Amino acid sequence: MPDRRVITLTTDFGLTDHFVGVMKGVILSIHPDVELVDISHEVGSYDINEGALTLAQSYRYFPPGTIHLVVVDPGVGSARRPILATTPRYHFVAPDNGVLSGIYEREDAVEVRHVTADHYWLKPVSHTFHGRDIFAPVAAWLSKGVEPSNFGDVINDYIRIALPKPTRREESGKWRVEGAVLRIDKFGNVITNLTPEDAPELFREPPPSFCIAINGHEVTTLRRSFADGHSSEVFAILGSSGYIEIGMNRGSAAQTLQAGRGAPVTVILLR
Amino acid sequence: MPDRRVITLTTDFGLTDHFVGVMKGVILSIHPDVELVDISHEVGSYDINEGALTLAQSYRYFPPGTIHLVVVDPGVGSARRPILATTPRYHFVAPDNGVLSGIYEREDAVEVRHVTADHYWLKPVSHTFHGRDIFAPVAAWLSKGVEPSNFGDVINDYIRIALPKPTRREESGKWRVEGAVLRIDKFGNVITNLTPEDAPELFREPPPSFCIAINGHEVTTLRRSFADGHSSEVFAILGSSGYIEIGMNRGSAAQTLQAGRGAPVTVILLR
Amino acid sequence: MPDRRVITLTTDFGLTDHFVGVMKGVILSIHPDVELVDISHEVGSYDINEGALTLAQSYRYFPPGTIHLVVVDPGVGSARRPILATTPRYHFVAPDNGVLSGIYEREDAVEVRHVTADHYWLKPVSHTFHGRDIFAPVAAWLSKGVEPSNFGDVINDYIRIALPKPTRREESGKWRVEGAVLRIDKFGNVITNLTPEDAPELFREPPPSFCIAINGHEVTTLRRSFADGHSSEVFAILGSSGYIEIGMNRGSAAQTLQAGRGAPVTVILLR
Repeated sequence: MPDRRVITLTTDFGLTDHFVGVMKGVILSIHPDVELVDISHEVGSYDINEGALTLAQSYRYFPPGTIHLVVVDPGVGSARRPILATTPRYHFVAPDNGVLSGIYEREDAVEVRHVTADHYWLKPVSHTFHGRDIFAPVAAWLSKGVEPSNFGDVINDYIRIALPKPTRREESGKWRVEGAVLRIDKFGNVITNLTPEDAPELFREPPPSFCIAINGHEVTTLRRSFADGHSSEVFAILGSSGYIEIGMNRGSAAQTLQAGRGAPVTVILLR
Repeated sequence: MPDRRVITLTTDFGLTDHFVGVMKGVILSIHPDVELVDISHEVGSYDINEGALTLAQSYRYFPPGTIHLVVVDPGVGSARRPILATTPRYHFVAPDNGVLSGIYEREDAVEVRHVTADHYWLKPVSHTFHGRDIFAPVAAWLSKGVEPSNFGDVINDYIRIALPKPTRREESGKWRVEGAVLRIDKFGNVITNLTPEDAPELFREPPPSFCIAINGHEVTTLRRSFADGHSSEVFAILGSSGYIEIGMNRGSAAQTLQAGRGAPVTVILLR
Repeated sequence: MPDRRVITLTTDFGLTDHFVGVMKGVILSIHPDVELVDISHEVGSYDINEGALTLAQSYRYFPPGTIHLVVVDPGVGSARRPILATTPRYHFVAPDNGVLSGIYEREDAVEVRHVTADHYWLKPVSHTFHGRDIFAPVAAWLSKGVEPSNFGDVINDYIRIALPKPTRREESGKWRVEGAVLRIDKFGNVITNLTPEDAPELFREPPPSFCIAINGHEVTTLRRSFADGHSSEVFAILGSSGYIEIGMNRGSAAQTLQAGRGAPVTVILLR
């Protein structure tokens, strides 16, 4: 291992309390020679879906060998299992509550283990902060080169959340693609769960006439970049994570549309 | 010193301004080979008590040799002294305003020095940003191996804030333990200043019947984990920092109880 | 290069989304042995002036060789150029939209290059996230020792925003210095664009009688430190970045004065 191993952190702990700092202290106490990178600590409290999405949008940009530590853990202290998921390039340490569903969906070869080897944990193990007592130490020992098999046995009944998939059907001679809003980003862009695969026609040259209905508004233009948008125009755009977004040039589409997470998004395309 | 030294940062500077970045730049300019870890920069402005609590809850999780830099400093530029406190495992660099009181309380052997050796400081020293000009450089030089004695003489009249202690007394054949809310965490958990030592009966098996009064509400159950709580139930729980907390399962006890910092918390126990 | 190179990050991405983490992953994938330091990710969305100010107040505190990565980029995906600016001590990687204006103003020898060598970029390059696809990789390759000249040719027509300058004139036998509010900091201090050069009389001993008019209020005292201010007094003070600020001792001047960014600030001095 010539390079320092990277451990990323994704949690719903926020940045005001001491929680994140303490997890980093625990990791550095076990293995001082790691690089710690925050992905986000502002995942909504207990919001497993949002945690899964944040991780899914980021994990592939890290160097091979990176250990992704994810603690969105409403079931802390209950029977929910701590798990370690391994792909050819990465490790993921998380509670078994579905927060790794985006990984299971995107990766072919995932080996998931139930972490039971408690001699790697911080003792005594609390019932309320396994990020500190279980997940951080496991990530730290992994980064030191401990083999995944040492942490526990492979399991197949790990929890998978079915992320809502867009549907596509014909209706009155038109294609109707139905999806939903996944999240609103910091700029007020409305990230949908639609990808170019769901509506490839939108990305043909010249693009067809189309309509995206969202919260009573109709979006009928597609822009290639935010700067291409006219002033106060709400448009569709292919976002950087591969999802179709509804955006504005220097403005908040979410505010203009008053559309939040979960809102239905319907694309109507001429056949 | 084979490993990189860790310097932690705890401030009330927030994350919007350039203050924290500048302190890190100053440290890295003096000693590039340190590991910088943020504990929190969202301590309330000028809130020495909150800074003291944040530090007290986290410092022990860091590797031996860690230097904890704490800048909550309403008296910057006045006669208040910069200090360096050393315990067998850690160093603390801070203004002498009581922000290290949680350390004095928890550690037996603390040596406190008045930092007067101004050749370690960044010149010219401003009257408004000693985090940059005094505290960060002192932490950096310490991390390079400069001995504490080089920074100034030992003092004994450093400022100690008496953190409010719970009281316990008998009344009408019952134990009455009175404490207060220390803070609300990101999840809305209400952290009290009560520990199991103040009410050991709560943690006996089977637990006795008890009542915790807070802002007109009565809490009468104790849960081991958040996930054990029934829907919309407000319960007591032993938190991860050793304090008794009032919490909910996937909900905000602070919002339900409308109880904030400083609110009285009374535990009534049958003798 | 014996020491690890520092790359700082200043963006308007916020800390909730995955954007900043992804940029760091991209950098570490190219060059694992760098030190990443956040200056601020809370620059107002699309706010080039604020980004320029944040950078100008911080860059000089970092070690020589530091690469400052600045992504406030409303024109992402348009014809605006990615640039690399080099001074004797630092590199700056940013969009060519004026966000480096504070550097051009403060540094004598700045060489600016149009970054065109796209083999250093992450492919495919999106139209919406050049922080990830262009700026982060360029910073990472720079940190590995790639020469600036390899990234593209020197340009002279880069965009410079004229930051508003205070004016000073005589009127009715008095000096009248007119400036404006640059920003409000986390403590509510009102940072003006006035420096001691604009009103040197204020800093003479003894100070002359003066009046600073701001939003209908008159400030007539100058304090050396915040702690010197009387309770509820609003005073002028020389801030740590060299600007004259309006502040209070443990209070928010911005709230008291109800003055925000851009508000005019007028200093009246007897000749």
